[in-house]
Amino acid sequence: MGPHPAVAAIRLAVRRVLHDILTEHHGTGHADIPDAALPHPTTHAGPPAPPRPPASTRPATPPLVLVACSGGADSMALASALAFEAPRLGVRAGGITVDHGLQAGSDLRAEEVVVRLRALGLDPVESTAVTVGREGGPEAAARDARYDALDAAAERHGAAAVLLGHTRDDQAETVLLGLARGSGIRSLSGMAAVSGAGGRYRRPFLHLDRQTARKACMAQSLPVWDDPHNTDPAYTRSRLRHEGLPALEKALGKGVVEALARTAQLSRDDADALDGWARQAEAGVRDATGLLDCSKLFALPPAVRRRILRRAAIEAGAPAGSLFARHIEEMDKLITGWRGQGAINLPGKVVAQRQGGRLVIRRG
Amino acid sequence: MGPHPAVAAIRLAVRRVLHDILTEHHGTGHADIPDAALPHPTTHAGPPAPPRPPASTRPATPPLVLVACSGGADSMALASALAFEAPRLGVRAGGITVDHGLQAGSDLRAEEVVVRLRALGLDPVESTAVTVGREGGPEAAARDARYDALDAAAERHGAAAVLLGHTRDDQAETVLLGLARGSGIRSLSGMAAVSGAGGRYRRPFLHLDRQTARKACMAQSLPVWDDPHNTDPAYTRSRLRHEGLPALEKALGKGVVEALARTAQLSRDDADALDGWARQAEAGVRDATGLLDCSKLFALPPAVRRRILRRAAIEAGAPAGSLFARHIEEMDKLITGWRGQGAINLPGKVVAQRQGGRLVIRRG
Repeated sequence: MGPHPAVAAIRLAVRRVLHDILTEHHGTGHADIPDAALPHPTTHAGPPAPPRPPASTRPATPPLVLVACSGGADSMALASALAFEAPRLGVRAGGITVDHGLQAGSDLRAEEVVVRLRALGLDPVESTAVTVGREGGPEAAARDARYDALDAAAERHGAAAVLLGHTRDDQAETVLLGLARGSGIRSLSGMAAVSGAGGRYRRPFLHLDRQTARKACMAQSLPVWDDPHNTDPAYTRSRLRHEGLPALEKALGKGVVEALARTAQLSRDDADALDGWARQAEAGVRDATGLLDCSKLFALPPAVRRRILRRAAIEAGAPAGSLFARHIEEMDKLITGWRGQGAINLPGKVVAQRQGGRLVIRRG
Repeated sequence: MGPHPAVAAIRLAVRRVLHDILTEHHGTGHADIPDAALPHPTTHAGPPAPPRPPASTRPATPPLVLVACSGGADSMALASALAFEAPRLGVRAGGITVDHGLQAGSDLRAEEVVVRLRALGLDPVESTAVTVGREGGPEAAARDARYDALDAAAERHGAAAVLLGHTRDDQAETVLLGLARGSGIRSLSGMAAVSGAGGRYRRPFLHLDRQTARKACMAQSLPVWDDPHNTDPAYTRSRLRHEGLPALEKALGKGVVEALARTAQLSRDDADALDGWARQAEAGVRDATGLLDCSKLFALPPAVRRRILRRAAIEAGAPAGSLFARHIEEMDKLITGWRGQGAINLPGKVVAQRQGGRLVIRRG
């Protein structure tokens, strides 16, 4: 008798990702391995793989893969699947839990997660405490502190990758959060299957639903911890999860989560292509002194022109996170609706103005 | 004392659109009119304007602009603003109401709308009855019948344009309906400010909220009719309006409708740019016999490649409306995940297969 279907599903998802990591680690090209035989939805989702050493210099030690685990159902399921698959593929598997210090007793909880991860056979396992700042709101600050800690742990242990337990449901929520910003398709593209420096972070469950992770824990009698933050209506994501998305599903039908996740992937590919186009077009619209030529910008499709304007503003020192669609729209009016308007103030004390058919964007 | 702010807002919105129509009708380029002085968010939203006759052949008769009016608040507000602005700009203004024949007494209602439009001073005014089919569901069938009738009325009267009362709220709903399909950014781009043959349809209220239209009717003591379909939970759009969107606003904040409308505009520009790229790239990836070369397709960004595949499937006879993201994904695997898989069945009995490094897509 095989494993429970949910357990089989989480293991398959992890096996695929470990396979990718091994391929990269051993410097074997895709052509040498029948990897394409796997129905792999994330093949072209991530940044290009890092340069691979020739076969003669293949590293002798097996790669280490860490799982980031909060003790919740998603990441406990991920840890259990990693613990099962890693030894079968010649991979070392460890775990990290981050103590955000935001709730009383969080240190004890972190120690409990360490014990559970060790019980699964993971090694090394560690708990790392962080101090959460306030920048960008409580959710963003916690996330920043968490990724800093995970980066440091990965470096310390020389890990080839860090697995994250984000599911398709998390992805759908992320798309809706991006939609609420209304800042274009990049913010609709959610989380990438592969992200971080050198493609360090992998999200094996991005196409799996939360229910499957939970069932896999139950089927394996794994105790899970339900973070009270996840049901606290003070958090936007929690409200979205427990009220917004269910209401949307009631109005639009059960396929909404899947549709949102698909939208993320399609938007990501589209945004990547347009960013590439803008990068390429940029050289052609600068004059000999490096200034942007308004009539050349005018001839570009609006989607490409606005991306060039955005890049130019960021290059001049405007912080990307404070640059909104309306800023770009105002800059664009200097090109498409020119009537002698004055300088435009952008975040980060950057000023954009039109002078003699050129766009001058600099710190004021 | 000036008009009520809501009345001022609807009139300004209509004035801008009439201004555009006049500019096109009289063959005057944008450079001759200080149109750019208006903060006009829809300038580049529509298809290119039709070719303009030289100034010497300017038509002598003033253009006729029709308003499509259901008798509801949005289109009654639109009719009132058109009736006010048109004579001031030398435009003739008429109205059309469509009797869908879906409710008992709908013919009497249509006659009532005719009386109200005449009372506003519009001329010609007519009611036109249609027979709603069943294709694509009740909402799509009613829409198709309505646009057929409006097209016919515009032709019959030689109208330069037909104004539609869609508001920013309608736009937000349309984006969410597109999101639920999960078929990419084109379906997120909502309704265009300018659409139809030769840019016939104009939506002056696309950046105005529904509440403003309703207030403008009240301020002008215009009686409005509330279509019971709009509150009938049997209709997806109605559920979205009364349950889905309010829940989303509660979770994400009040700016959701505006963010969705902005997403529509940005997605439309992005989709236009990528469609243009795909059209251009297509010629370069066909071999001497016109077949798609798989290795050349492979070298393209996924976003561009998938658009070329979609176009090729439609060209071969697959109905665009039945072609889903998963069909394109399967075709794409013939390029990016080739392992000797067989022919792929697409809607409309179209078959796609890889043969000798070429993609053969034809009716099976």
